[in-house]
Amino acid sequence: MRALHLGPSGPALVDKPFLQRPGEARVRVRLAGVCATDLELVKGYMGFEGTLGHEWVGEVEDAPDPSWVGRRVVGDINCPCGSCVMCQSGRPTHCSSRTVLGIVNRDGAFATHLSLPVTNLHPVPAAVSDDAAVFVEPLAAACQIAEQVHVRPSDRVLVLGTGRLGQLCARVLALTGGDVAAVGRNPRTLALLPAGIRAVPLADAPREAGADVVVDCTGNPDGLALATSLLRPRGTLVLKTTVHDVGRIEPNRWVIDELTVVGSRCGPFAPALRLLASGLVDPSPLLTARLPLSRGVEALERATREVKVVLEPG
Amino acid sequence: MRALHLGPSGPALVDKPFLQRPGEARVRVRLAGVCATDLELVKGYMGFEGTLGHEWVGEVEDAPDPSWVGRRVVGDINCPCGSCVMCQSGRPTHCSSRTVLGIVNRDGAFATHLSLPVTNLHPVPAAVSDDAAVFVEPLAAACQIAEQVHVRPSDRVLVLGTGRLGQLCARVLALTGGDVAAVGRNPRTLALLPAGIRAVPLADAPREAGADVVVDCTGNPDGLALATSLLRPRGTLVLKTTVHDVGRIEPNRWVIDELTVVGSRCGPFAPALRLLASGLVDPSPLLTARLPLSRGVEALERATREVKVVLEPG
Repeated sequence: MRALHLGPSGPALVDKPFLQRPGEARVRVRLAGVCATDLELVKGYMGFEGTLGHEWVGEVEDAPDPSWVGRRVVGDINCPCGSCVMCQSGRPTHCSSRTVLGIVNRDGAFATHLSLPVTNLHPVPAAVSDDAAVFVEPLAAACQIAEQVHVRPSDRVLVLGTGRLGQLCARVLALTGGDVAAVGRNPRTLALLPAGIRAVPLADAPREAGADVVVDCTGNPDGLALATSLLRPRGTLVLKTTVHDVGRIEPNRWVIDELTVVGSRCGPFAPALRLLASGLVDPSPLLTARLPLSRGVEALERATREVKVVLEPG
Repeated sequence: MRALHLGPSGPALVDKPFLQRPGEARVRVRLAGVCATDLELVKGYMGFEGTLGHEWVGEVEDAPDPSWVGRRVVGDINCPCGSCVMCQSGRPTHCSSRTVLGIVNRDGAFATHLSLPVTNLHPVPAAVSDDAAVFVEPLAAACQIAEQVHVRPSDRVLVLGTGRLGQLCARVLALTGGDVAAVGRNPRTLALLPAGIRAVPLADAPREAGADVVVDCTGNPDGLALATSLLRPRGTLVLKTTVHDVGRIEPNRWVIDELTVVGSRCGPFAPALRLLASGLVDPSPLLTARLPLSRGVEALERATREVKVVLEPG
């Protein structure tokens, strides 16, 4: 099959055999999204080699249980062992021997096909288009904030970064009825924010100081310092940024102001699918470029400038 | 009065006039303790100039309400304005215009006398000796961990650092019945841990990985990285260390493992006094050196090697 493979010399389009792991489903990829994490993997983050891609919607072509065949699906990217302490204590996404689609020891979705355990799959309701379903994985990551932190309707919430993930986090957090503002440096992405979310140019960020909750989606090692400066004492900093580079921080401010910093990663797919099916979150303005898989290397480059780039078959 | 004053050229014993602020009590200092924060202030932390010292027990000599006169007291070190947003929302220790005894815009306890609002004072029960009462302020800071984080009896808890604050934090956290270990590099301070708290030499710390809660009391910019490495996924890192130097950190691990980092500072005096009065916490083995105020500069130097150095009048 054709795949966008990350090797020691960088990403390249290759032909490689499809590996359907025992007991897993074979899924034909209908659409796949490029994520900031893919760009970090290319820089060396996690030391990954293999097929990139973990945001996707596809159709099951083969499965141990034939009732899955023909269904349109999305899928959890973490594949846990099921038997370690983390798995047995209800934290399977933290399984120490997990593989992760397109990120850790498992080929991903920038390919004609992918293999995943059936237990990872979620059928996509008819009301959710492929263009929307391809956002389920990052939208689930946005929902994860509310899984971990009690965000109150009376809270003042700041999302730093108006790229792919920041846009989704702001949309989910605005559902509380809270006062949500998104801070970005790019006028074009600020303009994509829906009514009800205040668009704040980066230069005006200091005026927003004193927030109850700040979410760092900057994808930048300096985001942590900016987020710290904008929180009220005893506020909560949600850290969504994973970057290959390392930043300098001054945790003194965290102690003096008794801040809470919460690292937040993958989230639950079912709520994300419900938010898309109900129309409460509309990611469609974020899909700004569409390329065939054959132009996958170009798509990675485009993703540094676009909001969401998706790959189609072809 | 005589005072250990921190000026631009370092700490020095000086004679300076006593300033009793309007509406405040005049307290004669009976005993004062040297804290790691004092040593950081000397290095330039917070840019403080004035009389050092914020751990103390004393006797009220003068107060607007004469019923206080003659009472043995300890006192909250934060002096809030009472009218700002933080004060009115129940977070007076985070008042943006607060003064802090011996730390921010207010002369401290390494002197014959200090001035504090009566509302900051707590009478010391007769069952609590001066040698114990001088530990109330850092013991309150240890209690603050339990104010902020739900530490469960089934949790495995690691305290990093067996100095002044680490010793008190370990003692308080062991009261849950949890499995508490303290990690230290100094055999002498490890030996001061009471029965029921496991003493772990620094070289053996990796064997303790997977803890539910790790408290950084190292007073070292590298403590944060060590604490991170010893937590289980979704574990909680309590940060007690404030240092003048800045460390490099890799917050990626916080996101991937979805850790929570909680900055923790000053705590409630009433529970600390109860723990001392009941004998549930016995700080007496920690008082390892006793010097007169006249040897205050030497006491600061000794504090880099001792557990707790206290200053007596004279």
